[in-house]
Amino acid sequence: MPSSGDSPASTPANRLQPPALPVDAAVADLSERELIARIQQQLPAAPPWLLVGIGDDAAVVEPERNRLEVLSVDAVVEGVHFDRRFTPPTAIGHRALAVNLSDLAAMGATPRLALLSFALPAALPCRDFDEIVAGLAALARRHRLHVVGGNLTRSPGPLVIDVTVSGTVKRRQLLTRSGARPGDEIYVTGSIGAATAGRQQLSDGAGDAAGHNATRFLYPEPRVRTGLLLGRNRAATAAIDLSAGVADGVRRLAEAGGVGAIIESDELPIDDDTRVWFTGRGLDPIAESLSGGDDYELLFAVRPRVRHRLRAVARGGDIPMTRIGVCTRETAVVLRRVAGDPFSDTPLPGGYTHFR
Amino acid sequence: MPSSGDSPASTPANRLQPPALPVDAAVADLSERELIARIQQQLPAAPPWLLVGIGDDAAVVEPERNRLEVLSVDAVVEGVHFDRRFTPPTAIGHRALAVNLSDLAAMGATPRLALLSFALPAALPCRDFDEIVAGLAALARRHRLHVVGGNLTRSPGPLVIDVTVSGTVKRRQLLTRSGARPGDEIYVTGSIGAATAGRQQLSDGAGDAAGHNATRFLYPEPRVRTGLLLGRNRAATAAIDLSAGVADGVRRLAEAGGVGAIIESDELPIDDDTRVWFTGRGLDPIAESLSGGDDYELLFAVRPRVRHRLRAVARGGDIPMTRIGVCTRETAVVLRRVAGDPFSDTPLPGGYTHFR
Repeated sequence: MPSSGDSPASTPANRLQPPALPVDAAVADLSERELIARIQQQLPAAPPWLLVGIGDDAAVVEPERNRLEVLSVDAVVEGVHFDRRFTPPTAIGHRALAVNLSDLAAMGATPRLALLSFALPAALPCRDFDEIVAGLAALARRHRLHVVGGNLTRSPGPLVIDVTVSGTVKRRQLLTRSGARPGDEIYVTGSIGAATAGRQQLSDGAGDAAGHNATRFLYPEPRVRTGLLLGRNRAATAAIDLSAGVADGVRRLAEAGGVGAIIESDELPIDDDTRVWFTGRGLDPIAESLSGGDDYELLFAVRPRVRHRLRAVARGGDIPMTRIGVCTRETAVVLRRVAGDPFSDTPLPGGYTHFR
Repeated sequence: MPSSGDSPASTPANRLQPPALPVDAAVADLSERELIARIQQQLPAAPPWLLVGIGDDAAVVEPERNRLEVLSVDAVVEGVHFDRRFTPPTAIGHRALAVNLSDLAAMGATPRLALLSFALPAALPCRDFDEIVAGLAALARRHRLHVVGGNLTRSPGPLVIDVTVSGTVKRRQLLTRSGARPGDEIYVTGSIGAATAGRQQLSDGAGDAAGHNATRFLYPEPRVRTGLLLGRNRAATAAIDLSAGVADGVRRLAEAGGVGAIIESDELPIDDDTRVWFTGRGLDPIAESLSGGDDYELLFAVRPRVRHRLRAVARGGDIPMTRIGVCTRETAVVLRRVAGDPFSDTPLPGGYTHFR
């Protein structure tokens, strides 16, 4: 039927735009089915391995041969992980998926599929709903991840978005938290503290929402490519993502490996914009950047004699990597304030937690 | 180290009981890590295919050979799907998993793993949290499903439990919604309407919480075994679970197959306790049972010439099956009020939806 190919609804350019609605429409004005259709309209065509997608009781997929599967779930909750007053809907959608992709990155896995579960307040504007989905779908496309199913329900309280992701990895390329050994060097991708500074700027209404720090908070970039290359080049002995901050990450990596760690305060990659923000508020950039969450960088350990493998990772990766410390036999986890001076060591501050 | 084998914490009998806490402890009194530990203590030992379980950034599993994977996510939200005033915590946990297992059952899949995502109000008593997990873990054990990971977050509003499940199925044994053809007979497992009656009884405080209807609402039994046998015996051309009621299920099955349906009102399996409840309140048991949700029975279509295959399903299955109608070429979906009399046909009432 050539006519169906010509209809606006099925041309690729239009397929990613849901149909227009009255500007003041809320999600409660639509049926579950209509909302699902609006999600589907923003998704690309199904990949060949997806045998049954959205619209049946469950999704059916063909597993990838000779790969392990890596599964993770993470939720973002209004009033806990974001504030709708200063978080644009696209950023909410982006974050909901990014936090999950960051978990896959930390395992060295290639993202494959996601399931979305939304609990929607009745008054949520449809426009916001569409933009949340758009933010999520855009990040999914960049990582070639396909949304295969989900669930919509009403929420009598906050907006909650639960995302489950699945990725794949070859057995020998899997990264876990638990392989760090004494002498391994500790690296971090990108820079730290910017997301914490950005969160403060936005909640105070004190900063430019398009500025460096705010952007880092609103649109965290999961380090998928770097995670993949660390696994592929067998460059890291252990890895973790920094959802709860560097200090928390170092502690967990050390604990899982049965080692301690010395983090060199001079080596921490803190951007100038971030230092300026904290200093201007009378805060210590190092302490704030260590304990602040939301960085979504990777922290990993590297055996010194295979340090050269990092070159291949740096060439193909998406972000610089900085050596910030070393694993020790002694199980204490400390911050060395003066390079080379053990007497300047203090315990690493606590991590950031959304829970308490 | 023989001493560790002797310690109470590691004996199998104790492993399924989390440590005692003050009776008035709330989840906000515990760290995320302590709460995760309380979940783990209620889970059985990891199966061999689970390479990395709770405690890393993501779970890592070995896929099952020569099987397709079936994935589903479903949420239960306080104030939408359950009311904590009359739903015991074990029933909340049971339901959170049961609704997902029901989706797997409708695809003919064997449950394999689950990921749990909890959004917890700070004041939720720890005792309730433990019992929610116990209800979920008990149902998981019965279906040999393993909890491989999850997420905990605070909720500033209602309790939300999101469960993602994955199951496996051989390609030729997969059931979908879309295979029904004109002439196929429509069957339903178990009985309908009891859960709706039970929900009313409980919310009115009018019924015995241990009575038949209330139990059906509180502890829905996913028809996993029957779904599996329908697929294995290639007895059904299409199947769907009845989360939103029979009327909704028939409509969706018919729509997916491009057929219509006649449902015989005399054939609907409605238990005496359920009839009595509705009749006593001046309600029509048939209308209520058709449009009420929460049944979590399976609805499926059977080609008459392979009807004998149902015998094997009935022998091995967990529940009776009742023929309630037939698929038609004409795409209308109707209720036949008098057997054999097309003039008694009326449109099937609408389904139950949690969304609006």
